Amino acid sequence: MKNMIIASTSTVHGGTYLSYILPELEEFFKGISTILFVPYARPGGISHDDYTAIAAKGLATIGKKVVGLHTFENPVKAVEDAEAIFVGGGNTFLLVTQLYKQQVLEPIRKAVINGTLYMGSSAGSNITGLTMQTTNDMPIVYPPSFKTFGLVPFNINPHYQDPIEGSKHMGETRETRIKEFHTINTQPVVGIREGSWLHVKDDVIYLKGTLSARIFEQGKEPYELETNSEINFN
Amino acid sequence: MKNMIIASTSTVHGGTYLSYILPELEEFFKGISTILFVPYARPGGISHDDYTAIAAKGLATIGKKVVGLHTFENPVKAVEDAEAIFVGGGNTFLLVTQLYKQQVLEPIRKAVINGTLYMGSSAGSNITGLTMQTTNDMPIVYPPSFKTFGLVPFNINPHYQDPIEGSKHMGETRETRIKEFHTINTQPVVGIREGSWLHVKDDVIYLKGTLSARIFEQGKEPYELETNSEINFN
Repeated sequence: MKNMIIASTSTVHGGTYLSYILPELEEFFKGISTILFVPYARPGGISHDDYTAIAAKGLATIGKKVVGLHTFENPVKAVEDAEAIFVGGGNTFLLVTQLYKQQVLEPIRKAVINGTLYMGSSAGSNITGLTMQTTNDMPIVYPPSFKTFGLVPFNINPHYQDPIEGSKHMGETRETRIKEFHTINTQPVVGIREGSWLHVKDDVIYLKGTLSARIFEQGKEPYELETNSEINFN
Repeated sequence: MKNMIIASTSTVHGGTYLSYILPELEEFFKGISTILFVPYARPGGISHDDYTAIAAKGLATIGKKVVGLHTFENPVKAVEDAEAIFVGGGNTFLLVTQLYKQQVLEPIRKAVINGTLYMGSSAGSNITGLTMQTTNDMPIVYPPSFKTFGLVPFNINPHYQDPIEGSKHMGETRETRIKEFHTINTQPVVGIREGSWLHVKDDVIYLKGTLSARIFEQGKEPYELETNSEINFN
């Protein structure tokens, strides 16, 4: 009964918060009045209240009310009671540390398996994978584990970025980093470009949005998956 | 009695391995015949032997012999016996995990304090700081801790990269990432650009090479430090 949107980013260049994906969200959240927002990733260190206000403003345009998970005395109950959950982006290490600390990782996973709508963007998408180990973020805090929801049978690399042509920078490209991941990890990695998202319905996963995705499987050359295609590693 | 070179990168665009810094290394390693190489960061997953061969080739041009730490039955004794240690770049998470696993973190730290020459590039430089938490690398493996040598009283960001003008990518810039680090960590961060390095002599630390460094202190606007200047946060 899983029903999820896993978006590369909250915002595309030149757009406002969630603007590029609002038509899809209007359909996705149809019949839902209130969305539980998880602000733990705190981009730029802003307060949980301020971050929740940004999400609320973005989703007000499609008539949704947004409440922050941090405002509940009992976060586990808040998760269990939610109709829909939206986990915003920011720093994945911070997000995962907080999910463990607040003991909501397993409750959110269970709720989504039982049909609670889930939307993630950026770090909130990264954690739907088996582990957070293909994040692009800086390890600003030490989480108790890198294990995440495992709601999809692969890892996610959000904000996937192609090598910059003519760059003289010697740091690793994104592709090189993911290949390094595969020297010691076996799960596939789906690199989702900004403006694209995955739609998960039970065990059927479609790539949506304007761009193709880059797929990395251990021991294979990376390849492109066209939009509106199914992702299936079986 | 610390004597260290902390380099942003092993290779600059258009150069060969270590070529840009060989004149400095010739002076630094004067009187030393053999350098102990730590290949644990394994860039691109190559073998320890292959990585050691790259370092050996680079340092043969200034007449040095290179031996890999992985070839010793007793790595702690190898560290204690070394005249000079060179820790190569690659993935910092992998490097730190291996240093803990082989139990050489504390022995290397002690050796350097007692006067063993230390050279690091990239990941091998990152770990000279208080923690590895300002690495740019992907967390491909879960280390027992983010704590590193603390041989300098700040954190290092190697391969420091300025924001790319006109970029439409919405992922965080390096500066944004380091500012996020400072929302929960207090130590200064020194962003070393490719082609620059720090020279540490006892407690005196100089920036060397062609470029300025970008300095981040908690609660201050980031600023530039000119080359051939001393770094001192007291």
